[in-house]
Amino acid sequence: MINITDPSAGMVQLVTFTVEPARQQEIADIIVEQVERTVAHRPGFVSATYHLSLDGTQVMNYAQWASKSDFDAFVEDPASQELRAVFASLDGMVSLTGSAWQVYRAVTPAVAR
Amino acid sequence: MINITDPSAGMVQLVTFTVEPARQQEIADIIVEQVERTVAHRPGFVSATYHLSLDGTQVMNYAQWASKSDFDAFVEDPASQELRAVFASLDGMVSLTGSAWQVYRAVTPAVAR
Repeated sequence: MINITDPSAGMVQLVTFTVEPARQQEIADIIVEQVERTVAHRPGFVSATYHLSLDGTQVMNYAQWASKSDFDAFVEDPASQELRAVFASLDGMVSLTGSAWQVYRAVTPAVAR
Repeated sequence: MINITDPSAGMVQLVTFTVEPARQQEIADIIVEQVERTVAHRPGFVSATYHLSLDGTQVMNYAQWASKSDFDAFVEDPASQELRAVFASLDGMVSLTGSAWQVYRAVTPAVAR
């Protein structure tokens, strides 16, 4: 279970990979395997959830980090840059882009409140 | 608690609002209030979590729906189009864009596995 509103997740990183639709799922599988071997061992890593766009053109990772400083330490590590280079060179990868967020407010169904 | 990997959430909608940074939080508050009054009452609505970009330029809603058909029924309702028009006309709103996803795979910390 991955809790979006988990107070121990201080930062959210969204990574969007634009891909050739024929390779969408294969690319997601390769990325997941690489992340399990590398990022999943980093201090401050909370979770990474991979999504497939219904139109087939993108893979999106909704990643939680304990804090922005944990995330920044990862980004500054050469291992992170190598990983990004591996992803960028995958067969069928068109482009990748990231953005940084914090959870602000959540809405749940009216009937459940 | 909002569970990203909740199996009863069949579809994810991502809505990204580009805003004037001075109004980022105010716009997020207005959207949350409107969504609580409207979308939160829709059948199939599971959750909406609002995020603020750390650079101040965007608000992002990570929304869960029970199924794509529930989401499509909402989108085709005139009430949905009215809501979108209200959001588009908010003071400080630059643009808004949406995309549809399904959760595929999740990675948790290596130490916890």
